[in-house]
Amino acid sequence: LVEYCHEEEETMTATIEAKRDQACLIVHGPDKPGIVAAVSGLIARNGGNIIALDQYSDNHEGGDFFQRVVFHRQDLSAAMPELEADLETTLRSHGLQWRLTDRSVRKRMAILASKSDHCLLDLLWRHRRDELPVSIPMVISNHTDTADDVRSFGVPFFHVPSSGEDKSDAEYRIVELLRGNVDFVVLARYMQILSDGFLEAIGVPVINIHHSFLPAFVGAAPYRKAKERGVKLIGATSHYVTEELDEGPIIEQDVTRVDHTMTAAALQARGAYVEREVLSRAVQWHAEDRVVRHGPHTIVFQ
Amino acid sequence: LVEYCHEEEETMTATIEAKRDQACLIVHGPDKPGIVAAVSGLIARNGGNIIALDQYSDNHEGGDFFQRVVFHRQDLSAAMPELEADLETTLRSHGLQWRLTDRSVRKRMAILASKSDHCLLDLLWRHRRDELPVSIPMVISNHTDTADDVRSFGVPFFHVPSSGEDKSDAEYRIVELLRGNVDFVVLARYMQILSDGFLEAIGVPVINIHHSFLPAFVGAAPYRKAKERGVKLIGATSHYVTEELDEGPIIEQDVTRVDHTMTAAALQARGAYVEREVLSRAVQWHAEDRVVRHGPHTIVFQ
Amino acid sequence: LVEYCHEEEETMTATIEAKRDQACLIVHGPDKPGIVAAVSGLIARNGGNIIALDQYSDNHEGGDFFQRVVFHRQDLSAAMPELEADLETTLRSHGLQWRLTDRSVRKRMAILASKSDHCLLDLLWRHRRDELPVSIPMVISNHTDTADDVRSFGVPFFHVPSSGEDKSDAEYRIVELLRGNVDFVVLARYMQILSDGFLEAIGVPVINIHHSFLPAFVGAAPYRKAKERGVKLIGATSHYVTEELDEGPIIEQDVTRVDHTMTAAALQARGAYVEREVLSRAVQWHAEDRVVRHGPHTIVFQ
Amino acid sequence: LVEYCHEEEETMTATIEAKRDQACLIVHGPDKPGIVAAVSGLIARNGGNIIALDQYSDNHEGGDFFQRVVFHRQDLSAAMPELEADLETTLRSHGLQWRLTDRSVRKRMAILASKSDHCLLDLLWRHRRDELPVSIPMVISNHTDTADDVRSFGVPFFHVPSSGEDKSDAEYRIVELLRGNVDFVVLARYMQILSDGFLEAIGVPVINIHHSFLPAFVGAAPYRKAKERGVKLIGATSHYVTEELDEGPIIEQDVTRVDHTMTAAALQARGAYVEREVLSRAVQWHAEDRVVRHGPHTIVFQ
Repeated sequence: LVEYCHEEEETMTATIEAKRDQACLIVHGPDKPGIVAAVSGLIARNGGNIIALDQYSDNHEGGDFFQRVVFHRQDLSAAMPELEADLETTLRSHGLQWRLTDRSVRKRMAILASKSDHCLLDLLWRHRRDELPVSIPMVISNHTDTADDVRSFGVPFFHVPSSGEDKSDAEYRIVELLRGNVDFVVLARYMQILSDGFLEAIGVPVINIHHSFLPAFVGAAPYRKAKERGVKLIGATSHYVTEELDEGPIIEQDVTRVDHTMTAAALQARGAYVEREVLSRAVQWHAEDRVVRHGPHTIVFQ
Repeated sequence: LVEYCHEEEETMTATIEAKRDQACLIVHGPDKPGIVAAVSGLIARNGGNIIALDQYSDNHEGGDFFQRVVFHRQDLSAAMPELEADLETTLRSHGLQWRLTDRSVRKRMAILASKSDHCLLDLLWRHRRDELPVSIPMVISNHTDTADDVRSFGVPFFHVPSSGEDKSDAEYRIVELLRGNVDFVVLARYMQILSDGFLEAIGVPVINIHHSFLPAFVGAAPYRKAKERGVKLIGATSHYVTEELDEGPIIEQDVTRVDHTMTAAALQARGAYVEREVLSRAVQWHAEDRVVRHGPHTIVFQ
Repeated sequence: LVEYCHEEEETMTATIEAKRDQACLIVHGPDKPGIVAAVSGLIARNGGNIIALDQYSDNHEGGDFFQRVVFHRQDLSAAMPELEADLETTLRSHGLQWRLTDRSVRKRMAILASKSDHCLLDLLWRHRRDELPVSIPMVISNHTDTADDVRSFGVPFFHVPSSGEDKSDAEYRIVELLRGNVDFVVLARYMQILSDGFLEAIGVPVINIHHSFLPAFVGAAPYRKAKERGVKLIGATSHYVTEELDEGPIIEQDVTRVDHTMTAAALQARGAYVEREVLSRAVQWHAEDRVVRHGPHTIVFQ
Repeated sequence: LVEYCHEEEETMTATIEAKRDQACLIVHGPDKPGIVAAVSGLIARNGGNIIALDQYSDNHEGGDFFQRVVFHRQDLSAAMPELEADLETTLRSHGLQWRLTDRSVRKRMAILASKSDHCLLDLLWRHRRDELPVSIPMVISNHTDTADDVRSFGVPFFHVPSSGEDKSDAEYRIVELLRGNVDFVVLARYMQILSDGFLEAIGVPVINIHHSFLPAFVGAAPYRKAKERGVKLIGATSHYVTEELDEGPIIEQDVTRVDHTMTAAALQARGAYVEREVLSRAVQWHAEDRVVRHGPHTIVFQ
């Protein structure tokens, strides 16, 4: 046996440690001349060095302006208050919204799941590989099937059954677990519809994976509907949850090829691999502050 | 200057000449044991040698059976009547439908178009490159924009305007041109809805290209709807036309990635390249007898 | 909370139980007229009903013939000896090779791995979901990193270190573990080169995953080479292992898009998701007897 | 007949007219803090409004910096000298290279072709649709096959045969035609190798399409080699031409799926559709100043 290569010893440079002293700034609001200069001037005078900058304006005459800037600043955490004060003064007066995050701080992500494990396991596993800049304080499920798997990743698992008539108790319990403890929530094939009040009660973004290329096959049983319609591609869609079912802003979509020989169950099995990819990508982009919501749409800076 | 390679001298082996003495047989009907043996036995006793065989059964207990066989038979055209008689005797008694075609005979394909040229030109180019086993006796359009292009390919162009109040005259004129002269019709971004009676009047299959991944964005202006919904993929769907608008059996679909920076017009421009690929593939498969309609679905043997 | 749908209760119909009394027959050899009729006649007279049939001939005048037939036969296991005898008599005389398998019998698959877990875990997950018709009697690794993961799936893990000067001891130990116990071996990012004698000693097919779209970037460190060359796509290739490194018959390949911003480590991380998909598909096709080796090529019946 | 929709009347907003008073600025050189602020400040003080900005740094500590800015400036053409002077003063002193273009001025693109028409026609046709911000002063070919097609697009066609022993005459003739008349050259399946002196003599970028996913199958006859190796994907690569054959910086690549049934000729026919897409995209990006060469690589801002 001769050693093939040492590639496996390579380390990912994109780890959270490598992001020490890096900040991500999102700016959006009404477009007008000079915003980029104002923002980059502000960063420069605060000792920052721009690493990456993406800018988008949906109409440079009276449209909306969006910008994502990643910059390096020695001793960032100490400088945050000063930076924030300068941003408030400089940008708020122009009617611009802004959001500044320290890239070495992990976002706290809760996962809600049911029985299916493919999306859940993919997130837990990418987290363990340190590919997602998040911590996972908890997984909540209305079933116990995945409890052992979740705990084997060192992640707390809470079982909140939802079998009874009145499901408001279950939802209340979930809100209690989440509130104040998480920065965003991922529905990893969570097969329960959340009430209108849930989103408001938890007050953080919720990301869902829908098992079709929306807006095709809205609602339940999309693989069965796909089989009935005889489509040649099936897909998955990750989106922010809003009060309108399956209507939230789309973050990411993808498809895979299928054919006439496949049953609805085979479509479902094939589709699972698209679902996990699409959800994991959407979660990563959200966690890296690459996604800006804009009404029914998203701006995704890649 | 040194010659790079002689590859351009390579000839396609899939031309119509290479298909001399090749037949394509499609068999479908209720599944039961022994059909494959009966069909292959029939081909053998008639002097045929099987080149390619695909078989599909949607349920081997009481389901439907589909088979496509390509075989070589010396002096095929002389043997056709005998083959047909044997097929009738052997298969009809088992309740099976069959269709036998001589692969060296081109199908006659008419194209209906409007102003857009991308799907139309792609079909004309592929035909000129001898990649489609068809002849093109005519292109009919409700506009004259593409007349010069079409005629430069040596293909007759007929202008049938549809601007007036009563459009039944236009449709009547089209039926007159088509009837008896074509084996199938392609709507290459033909922007008129055909009446219920049209399909019956011409009596041959009609293939359409819809500029979305159906069933998303049924009806008009799918690119505008795609922009409004904020999808991350746009697509195109080629299907057989039925009396229900955009509901016919799907032959082929594909998608391409888009992002938030693209206007509806940019989606339309990008989508055109998917449309022409999807329609050309669907036409090729239909022309090569690879597609079997089965209720609202298609079986596509590749 | 309202229940979203019951789809998760759907069961895959493609499980091993559903394949009871199903056989898969592979036939290959010199093409001549009448083989399909002979094979389908043989199946019919032995009480079989053909479920799926694929046939391919690389040249119908003096070329090679390949066929895969799946058929149902009541009480298959009892009928196997008779079927085999008939196949031997009928086909061997025509110079044809054949292979008959009972589809309700799982193939025994061993996995060799190193430190990387992505391909290994994907196979273990798919096996647990009952998507692969295999049993996994053992995982062998030259590192212990994945031992806990592997055993949590109920699969035996053997550590065979390969750190010393003379690696023939390690290889000898692996052969001892495998011989007689497995039907095929998967190298799931196993980072050691096997000696020429290894393949012969174990006597079963070995499937590898190479982390590039072969023949680009043969050998070690393909992601580093990809970064150096500045490619816009990276890929992965699954192939049968032969004595020539990275030259074995290709079973499956796929690619993913990358860009100039990605480091070699980022390519490696992105590529891992292509590797696991490509290897899992290749393993599934091999396990389902869909792959026929033909010199340096494969015929893949899908 | 009922009118389906008016979508075809939609106009592309990305036409050259819409780019009046828009400039594109490319900046690159050694990275240091404050470049983005300096550039955006410069644009602001010269009355420009930034529409789109992309920035990339390959290492923010001692790496190289690349930026593409599109901005609007009333009466741009009058303001160009002043802008250029300011850029020279502000940027050159920092050791930065820059390139400023007026987006309403078309780049002059010559096409060199041989017998194959697919890449050539796709470029001519996209140009006619006004999707490429170029003018096409000439097509030069060593064959006459495409002369009528080219001229039907209103583009001059020059035949420069290269059949003789000494090909330096032909090359000399081509240089004479091109020099001073074009801003870049596209080799649209031009099957001759250019001499080392050619690039220097014409002094503008040359873009080639290679009919494989480089670095696989370098050199001639890649489809034949692909068939021999038994790959499951074939592809195409567009790159800048350098003195090393097939080694220039890659602009774009793509692939398509193939299978064992396809002959080398069928691969070639299928591959042609990938080639035209890849080349057309690369040409569009080059013409829109989205591509920056950086040693053996390209930065592509999308």
